[in-house]
Amino acid sequence: VRKPIVGVIGPGEGATATDVDNAYQLGAAIATQGWIVLTGGRNVGVMDAASRGARSQGGLTIGILPAASPEALSEAVEIAILTDLGQARNNLNVLSSNIVVACGMGLGTASEVALALKQGKSVVLLSPDDRAYQFFASLARDRLFYASTAAVALQHLKRGIALTYSHRQASL
Amino acid sequence: VRKPIVGVIGPGEGATATDVDNAYQLGAAIATQGWIVLTGGRNVGVMDAASRGARSQGGLTIGILPAASPEALSEAVEIAILTDLGQARNNLNVLSSNIVVACGMGLGTASEVALALKQGKSVVLLSPDDRAYQFFASLARDRLFYASTAAVALQHLKRGIALTYSHRQASL
Amino acid sequence: VRKPIVGVIGPGEGATATDVDNAYQLGAAIATQGWIVLTGGRNVGVMDAASRGARSQGGLTIGILPAASPEALSEAVEIAILTDLGQARNNLNVLSSNIVVACGMGLGTASEVALALKQGKSVVLLSPDDRAYQFFASLARDRLFYASTAAVALQHLKRGIALTYSHRQASL
Amino acid sequence: VRKPIVGVIGPGEGATATDVDNAYQLGAAIATQGWIVLTGGRNVGVMDAASRGARSQGGLTIGILPAASPEALSEAVEIAILTDLGQARNNLNVLSSNIVVACGMGLGTASEVALALKQGKSVVLLSPDDRAYQFFASLARDRLFYASTAAVALQHLKRGIALTYSHRQASL
Repeated sequence: VRKPIVGVIGPGEGATATDVDNAYQLGAAIATQGWIVLTGGRNVGVMDAASRGARSQGGLTIGILPAASPEALSEAVEIAILTDLGQARNNLNVLSSNIVVACGMGLGTASEVALALKQGKSVVLLSPDDRAYQFFASLARDRLFYASTAAVALQHLKRGIALTYSHRQASL
Repeated sequence: VRKPIVGVIGPGEGATATDVDNAYQLGAAIATQGWIVLTGGRNVGVMDAASRGARSQGGLTIGILPAASPEALSEAVEIAILTDLGQARNNLNVLSSNIVVACGMGLGTASEVALALKQGKSVVLLSPDDRAYQFFASLARDRLFYASTAAVALQHLKRGIALTYSHRQASL
Repeated sequence: VRKPIVGVIGPGEGATATDVDNAYQLGAAIATQGWIVLTGGRNVGVMDAASRGARSQGGLTIGILPAASPEALSEAVEIAILTDLGQARNNLNVLSSNIVVACGMGLGTASEVALALKQGKSVVLLSPDDRAYQFFASLARDRLFYASTAAVALQHLKRGIALTYSHRQASL
Repeated sequence: VRKPIVGVIGPGEGATATDVDNAYQLGAAIATQGWIVLTGGRNVGVMDAASRGARSQGGLTIGILPAASPEALSEAVEIAILTDLGQARNNLNVLSSNIVVACGMGLGTASEVALALKQGKSVVLLSPDDRAYQFFASLARDRLFYASTAAVALQHLKRGIALTYSHRQASL
């Protein structure tokens, strides 16, 4: 059985200190579960923090970079996928994740939340701005989850992954 | 001088009758200006209506399809780009447009609005749900425009295109 | 009925004077047929020459750029698709063409010939190196055509397009 | 220091028994070196055999699928990247590999060899048809290596990876 992959998304350069703290905690918590952390791979913001958090617990980290070279790659990413796709790579991030959690919001993050929900994935929004939550809830309420803390987000991830894996076994 | 390209985005299967009416009117108005209409190319919803509207005025229509084959291509698209990129093609739609207008909202549309704003394009939201407008305005207020009717949307497009073309000449 | 699109591929910076002459002649001949010329869109080599040739006869030209901006766009391209996909855009070039003709050879061109044949398209090689012809003929002889001159290439294009369109009608 | 990633490419459905044997041996040899095997991820031909070989030695395997779903995923792939890019994903395979080795030849494989060489990667052709070797050698002789057996291919990989890593250290 393959390990679950959790996509952790959020702002790069625009991440707040809270976003970064949340991402680090989430990365660590995900690794502690034995799951893999997947991010956009760059060495800034939520991507970098989630990968560092996962590595702090010995977890495996995947980074799907928009560029053709590893120049801006986070040191904490072990498996780097170089796409040279620019923002078109956002769709790969969400397709390759079993479930997605967003720490903070920005335009790139918004595109990933929308694409994840469109592709049928569940998305956890960690302490989102009310406008973000209301907007995405208006489009896909049944697969959108609200978490006030990283600990609550982890509970949503656990349930989401359990559900995904039981569905998968049922269909095999 | 190349003709301006206006990306008209919006729901496919999920489009409302109002979305379709607006898209048809917009397509016609854009063609009347001598501009090109670019859509996601499929034969449903806003994509199809905008292309039909443009053709009704003899306008040129481009469709950037997610698929590898023209099976689901709108009859009203004259230039079809087959991408086989799935939803990753959304980024091409907005990059290839000088300005973008959204008729209605859905998850794919939301991803395109976010990507357009991220890539520095201006986006006109035509009679949007308040939650959609508030959300995107919270992320990029200066390039987001609200239009209550297709006629108002056209005014925004005119100003946006005039601005783009004066910038371009200044930089050449 | 949509106009046929002919993909004209070949080296950019590495194009020889013969490649460029051939591409210009081909572009002009394709436009004279009322067909559309599709290229990789940049302002060098075969891409640029084919587009200029087509424009010299008032033909329509599409350029599918690897970049996110039109900086390196050929002046002779009327419809520019900005992909930001790097070399992954090569697959779009061949998918969006009804038939492909290669003027000269290089690594990017080789990838496009291979992808075109893989996607079921016919490919005309214009005065190819013997090694190029032998290699591709070893993989897909039935859809690979050899042309010693642009005039012969045009004959192959005519037959290929007639076949495509009769197949299409048969299946409709 | 990140582990080297070796891309093993070759036919899927069209692989010969020799291709499959070579791919399995190569996968095993690569894993024994502590390197990661990256393939196109599907459960057929060279992709599947290389992944199985690597797993037989406890190696890590990455599969970059053309599809949006894991339906056709090889059981021997541990990290699956779902791209939904069709053949455009070929460019990701070679960009994400430090070096590439081809077992057998086909149209998809030819596109990947061309793209790898274009992106500056070294490519080892394992017991290639003479036409394939001559063709690619005519385009990029200095980064193309011929191997008559999997053991010889491994020697080329060792030298190529040592070179890549010494370059990288020199540039840091």
